[in-house]
Amino acid sequence: MDFTLSEKTREIADRLTAFMDEHVLPAEAVYHRHMASAADRWTIPPIMEELKEKARAAGLWNLWLPESDLGAGLTNLEYAPLCEIMGRSPIGAEVFNCNAPDTGNMEVLVRYGTPAQKERWLTPLLEGRIRSAFCMTEPEVASSDATNVRCSIREDGDDLVIDGRKWWASGAMDPRCEIFIVMGKTDPTAETHRQQSMVLVPRATPGVRLVRAMEVFGGDDAPHGHAEIVFENVRVPKANMLLGPGRGFEIAQGRLGPGRIHHCMRLVGCAQRALETACRRAAERVAFGRPLAEQGSVREEIARSVCEITQARLLTLAAADEMDRKGNKAARDMIAMIKIVAPSMAQTVIDRAIQIHGAMGVSQDTFLAEAWKYARTIRIADGPDAVHLMSLGRQTLRRHAGRSA
Amino acid sequence: MDFTLSEKTREIADRLTAFMDEHVLPAEAVYHRHMASAADRWTIPPIMEELKEKARAAGLWNLWLPESDLGAGLTNLEYAPLCEIMGRSPIGAEVFNCNAPDTGNMEVLVRYGTPAQKERWLTPLLEGRIRSAFCMTEPEVASSDATNVRCSIREDGDDLVIDGRKWWASGAMDPRCEIFIVMGKTDPTAETHRQQSMVLVPRATPGVRLVRAMEVFGGDDAPHGHAEIVFENVRVPKANMLLGPGRGFEIAQGRLGPGRIHHCMRLVGCAQRALETACRRAAERVAFGRPLAEQGSVREEIARSVCEITQARLLTLAAADEMDRKGNKAARDMIAMIKIVAPSMAQTVIDRAIQIHGAMGVSQDTFLAEAWKYARTIRIADGPDAVHLMSLGRQTLRRHAGRSA
Amino acid sequence: MDFTLSEKTREIADRLTAFMDEHVLPAEAVYHRHMASAADRWTIPPIMEELKEKARAAGLWNLWLPESDLGAGLTNLEYAPLCEIMGRSPIGAEVFNCNAPDTGNMEVLVRYGTPAQKERWLTPLLEGRIRSAFCMTEPEVASSDATNVRCSIREDGDDLVIDGRKWWASGAMDPRCEIFIVMGKTDPTAETHRQQSMVLVPRATPGVRLVRAMEVFGGDDAPHGHAEIVFENVRVPKANMLLGPGRGFEIAQGRLGPGRIHHCMRLVGCAQRALETACRRAAERVAFGRPLAEQGSVREEIARSVCEITQARLLTLAAADEMDRKGNKAARDMIAMIKIVAPSMAQTVIDRAIQIHGAMGVSQDTFLAEAWKYARTIRIADGPDAVHLMSLGRQTLRRHAGRSA
Amino acid sequence: MDFTLSEKTREIADRLTAFMDEHVLPAEAVYHRHMASAADRWTIPPIMEELKEKARAAGLWNLWLPESDLGAGLTNLEYAPLCEIMGRSPIGAEVFNCNAPDTGNMEVLVRYGTPAQKERWLTPLLEGRIRSAFCMTEPEVASSDATNVRCSIREDGDDLVIDGRKWWASGAMDPRCEIFIVMGKTDPTAETHRQQSMVLVPRATPGVRLVRAMEVFGGDDAPHGHAEIVFENVRVPKANMLLGPGRGFEIAQGRLGPGRIHHCMRLVGCAQRALETACRRAAERVAFGRPLAEQGSVREEIARSVCEITQARLLTLAAADEMDRKGNKAARDMIAMIKIVAPSMAQTVIDRAIQIHGAMGVSQDTFLAEAWKYARTIRIADGPDAVHLMSLGRQTLRRHAGRSA
Repeated sequence: MDFTLSEKTREIADRLTAFMDEHVLPAEAVYHRHMASAADRWTIPPIMEELKEKARAAGLWNLWLPESDLGAGLTNLEYAPLCEIMGRSPIGAEVFNCNAPDTGNMEVLVRYGTPAQKERWLTPLLEGRIRSAFCMTEPEVASSDATNVRCSIREDGDDLVIDGRKWWASGAMDPRCEIFIVMGKTDPTAETHRQQSMVLVPRATPGVRLVRAMEVFGGDDAPHGHAEIVFENVRVPKANMLLGPGRGFEIAQGRLGPGRIHHCMRLVGCAQRALETACRRAAERVAFGRPLAEQGSVREEIARSVCEITQARLLTLAAADEMDRKGNKAARDMIAMIKIVAPSMAQTVIDRAIQIHGAMGVSQDTFLAEAWKYARTIRIADGPDAVHLMSLGRQTLRRHAGRSA
Repeated sequence: MDFTLSEKTREIADRLTAFMDEHVLPAEAVYHRHMASAADRWTIPPIMEELKEKARAAGLWNLWLPESDLGAGLTNLEYAPLCEIMGRSPIGAEVFNCNAPDTGNMEVLVRYGTPAQKERWLTPLLEGRIRSAFCMTEPEVASSDATNVRCSIREDGDDLVIDGRKWWASGAMDPRCEIFIVMGKTDPTAETHRQQSMVLVPRATPGVRLVRAMEVFGGDDAPHGHAEIVFENVRVPKANMLLGPGRGFEIAQGRLGPGRIHHCMRLVGCAQRALETACRRAAERVAFGRPLAEQGSVREEIARSVCEITQARLLTLAAADEMDRKGNKAARDMIAMIKIVAPSMAQTVIDRAIQIHGAMGVSQDTFLAEAWKYARTIRIADGPDAVHLMSLGRQTLRRHAGRSA
Repeated sequence: MDFTLSEKTREIADRLTAFMDEHVLPAEAVYHRHMASAADRWTIPPIMEELKEKARAAGLWNLWLPESDLGAGLTNLEYAPLCEIMGRSPIGAEVFNCNAPDTGNMEVLVRYGTPAQKERWLTPLLEGRIRSAFCMTEPEVASSDATNVRCSIREDGDDLVIDGRKWWASGAMDPRCEIFIVMGKTDPTAETHRQQSMVLVPRATPGVRLVRAMEVFGGDDAPHGHAEIVFENVRVPKANMLLGPGRGFEIAQGRLGPGRIHHCMRLVGCAQRALETACRRAAERVAFGRPLAEQGSVREEIARSVCEITQARLLTLAAADEMDRKGNKAARDMIAMIKIVAPSMAQTVIDRAIQIHGAMGVSQDTFLAEAWKYARTIRIADGPDAVHLMSLGRQTLRRHAGRSA
Repeated sequence: MDFTLSEKTREIADRLTAFMDEHVLPAEAVYHRHMASAADRWTIPPIMEELKEKARAAGLWNLWLPESDLGAGLTNLEYAPLCEIMGRSPIGAEVFNCNAPDTGNMEVLVRYGTPAQKERWLTPLLEGRIRSAFCMTEPEVASSDATNVRCSIREDGDDLVIDGRKWWASGAMDPRCEIFIVMGKTDPTAETHRQQSMVLVPRATPGVRLVRAMEVFGGDDAPHGHAEIVFENVRVPKANMLLGPGRGFEIAQGRLGPGRIHHCMRLVGCAQRALETACRRAAERVAFGRPLAEQGSVREEIARSVCEITQARLLTLAAADEMDRKGNKAARDMIAMIKIVAPSMAQTVIDRAIQIHGAMGVSQDTFLAEAWKYARTIRIADGPDAVHLMSLGRQTLRRHAGRSA
């Protein structure tokens, strides 16, 4: 066992931290000023493209993709501390082309795409020129249970015809978003986990209609947004099918492991920054004759936050390590654990930081409100807490049921 | 002891519930549709004025004001269950002219206003024709400690001249808002709690500048909003002083008791509706082959919510009763208790309801996200949790320190 | 609604408090000294019989029995605050002949006993001359589900023959204990809830064998104890059957409501005393240069405890009121609520008081360790938390499932 | 970073697990049977000495002592997983001569003892022939603040004379206990942290009086016990001083780091076994028609326990690693973290396991009640939670106060 960063990770981490401090954190205000004054909320602040260019030039690009020569050649364990650093800023991941849902979508294309699909969509995604969305969740059914999917994909000559309604397609409102990965049912009579398929649908296809932007606690998360989308008689060539008919569930499973761990890594970074922000605030703010930092209940909250962050970080690293050593499937209990632990931890730690900030904490004047919403939604996205708790509980009970103690 | 509603309260409660079901709840969608499509976010949906007219005609108006013939003649204990019913809808209280911060501001005018001040401002407020804001919190200092206030009020001839910066003046963005109650320092050399004064400042006074709308978790709470306001060399006649110089702290203390308990009553209503909404959702939604309502962890969460709501309701009623019997000051421990308990309870119960709804729960498609933000901000407004905990803890420790057991 | 004690309750409460302060609390040390030095742990400290005599002489006797001229004529709501006062001392309830399980057993005899049964067992129990035990729980099955009971009761001529194994028969080790109420199956082929019967079994009956005293966290709760008992071919006359064959489940249900609420009342008293004890300790104890009472985290813990105790007390009172007005069956949701809330509340509050006391808190030098064990076991006795949560959750879900909001 | 066990640790861990399964776990019942029937509670069950002999023969002995050729040559990080395995049984650590407080006392002697002191006391302790106690805590003062110590040690000719009262001297009731390390004040006029000294006091010295055994939640933890001890005019030669006058605080600090981490490691083992025990119980026990293992709330509790145990384990390992790499002093924040996290985690996990067991869970029929008491007392021993929270909070606030984010 060894709890120190490898030389390689340490070197990139140092450069990444310097880049974040020098370029990204100061750009947050510029970015938000653009958004606050934009006539059209669905435009990208120019600062983002400038930052991306700088990051790419600095070799801090596509750090996330393990086991592929298209990425930076890092394992999950090597990437985790880097992802945490990016996660300190809500605009961080995109700067380095490491943001959801594009990483998950690129991973699908890397693992399951045909050469033609890769050339057409993966290449511009890896270069950060276009964006993508993942259309899985539907308003009518509990999508935590993927077998509930109702969207229909049927063959018609050389085409696939898609009909359905999706929502929470994150990033779909982004003006650069050009491609959707859509989950639907190709064969409702097949075995439960072989009914679903995934298909590539260009956003510009006739019949694709963005109905509205879903709000998250009253905000629209522009310029990326979460779209409700209707697919009405949408036609794409059969070559747009991913992996093959009936393989949708399998792709979804494969996609989720890395996606989940990336969210958790970023949330550790969010929580860590929230803690540091709260410490600074507590040192400066005086109430009832003493700085908050000298008040026992504040110290206790800070201490609890340190304990919770440190544990969640270690758990996330251990999960990354297990994914590297055993594969995503064998690591599923560890993945369930971090998915249960990290978002709740971040929600709690950020909530405490908000409280220490008083009214400023809920406002646009810190990153806390945005970070809190991110943590809160991840308790639902990619499987709500309850689903992971049930799965982990069941597995654990099975493992120990028969053994004597 | 008696835990049943009085005949009088029961009768009004029945009419109020019927009014809410018939008029207010169906109007929520109309209201939000107006806001979603309004070119200017600071306009009032016409449905609100229609509802107010109906409520007033039905005699469901100004129910909140105890010990005054200007109100409905209800005690705090009689009003509490009614306030809970209104609190079920985010737009409920205003319909009955029972909304913050106007109730608190009207109470100040009733208790401390001169006949001239009452005629000019109280009358139109009681009639719901204008709105008001309370300018207390400042960005530069911890305003949970009212002695920190920096805004300056100085005499100059027959005038008072105000200079300072306030934020979180709720309702100040409302186009109908005409009057501000401003807290400032008139004599920084006086005894700590006699330095502050309160003064009436019409919004239209030169030198009053609304700088921006504060956001709450990324939303602007339009059309009421929370303003950041700069007062630069703002002149009002001395007759606009409330109660007298150096009486500001005293007024602030008197204002807070009822304000706090009204928030708590409404939050019990919010939480109760969230629970009921979650129950219906759980009955309808199927995941992994069973309705959520049959899943053990959902049942447990519902049961915990019932326990917490029922306890917070009883505590709020008991606090109202103590305010009626002993006065606001003597009831301060009970007021601290409900202020600690009710917002956290509501935050927790609504959070569970959100989780049961999945992604829909954080969106604009239910009242949950808005209700959650209300609960969360009340943990900060009118004294953050920590301040009430410290005060209640200190009082309790004193009470028992000397007694043997 | 009215949150003040009635004149009648107030008067008894004052006398009871005075009696507790003057006689019971000072007797605790005497009682424990006796137990610590007793050669035989299953003997009653003489001080207890002296206290009982005094209490009876003072008219503070059998206060618990509502709707019967055998008791003090108090409703559950009137009794609740009195029961809380007795609950302040682990030896309190017995002094006033208001202790479990005898109250529950007497209630069974009052409601369901024949005149002969009453004369033989109820009269000496009401006079405090003998003690009783309730033999329900079995080691082999989950007794939270009463239909699991395995103990067999079969007719044989004029006799009933009992075979089975029970444990956690509280009070059965008490040398004064003369009578057991035993739950068993008379007809395993009957409808699920008609298979069980209850029968009166004198402890001295041949075939009754006390196997051992169950320990609670390593202590034996002497001199009352919790017995594991084997019934082997135990014969009693048919006249010892309670109510009739197949009525056991019905009696068990009727017995549990009052028993549960008495425990909860007492636990509120335990928690209240723990809080007061912690306050005194915090005022006296100095660490790192300041009394604990001035440390923020201690104040916060005290404040949270006050909030939790006050809420649990109100909930218990409201449940008592509902039992009085609607009957035990209709009040079952409220009874479930207090059974969920009060023991956990007491466990938490006492745990905090222990922590404030440091090592002394876990020792024999305060009543805290004993009180904590009482609270902890009540989370299991009379239905574990999970059973009440499931029941309350299911009922609540049903109630709201069909209504619109 | 690497989250796998080293070859060396894995090999010992396998042998240790086999030994525990084959010898220690089956001996628990024998051990407890001896204690239950012993006329004198302060005698050692013979099975313990048999187990020690076997362990020593198997080379599983004194595994705990890092940086010394007297131990097994393991680092803290290598020892941690082994200590966890021993911690699975309440009688485990002693079997391998790795039990508190002897390990801490031996560490003091190894680091600070003179050759004569080592020969006289360390050698038999390392061989497991005698036992020792640490006399630090006093009934009169808050001993979490070591500067509060009142016990007096004064020079008189060639002797030291000790007067004072200590309690919670764990292991002092053990018949094999021969030596006490006593903390007292040699110079009340010196600088705050130089007033204290530590001295070796043989138990048989005249003037040493064991007053009573402290109870833990009503149990006496025989045969080791926790003694209250009076020292009256106790004379030992000056050569019994450890390290030198005024060095007591320094020794205490040095002693606590390893002691704390050993407790935490063992508590992780306790919690892990509690979880496994609960899983087996849940698989076997049927209530309301289904095994507990299929009930959602049980699955959720199991899952939460897995998450909490895994995180606490990782944190403890990371703390051990930091102690190895940076030294005990530099690792103090990590040590504070595990001391905050592990006991509370264990208390919670074991409490859940108890609840899943129902009444059996609080009884003598599982190891759960004993394990729970261990966890609960460690939240007080070696610094109560609040002290570590304050220390960690203060350090964290300092670290981040000045940095921008």
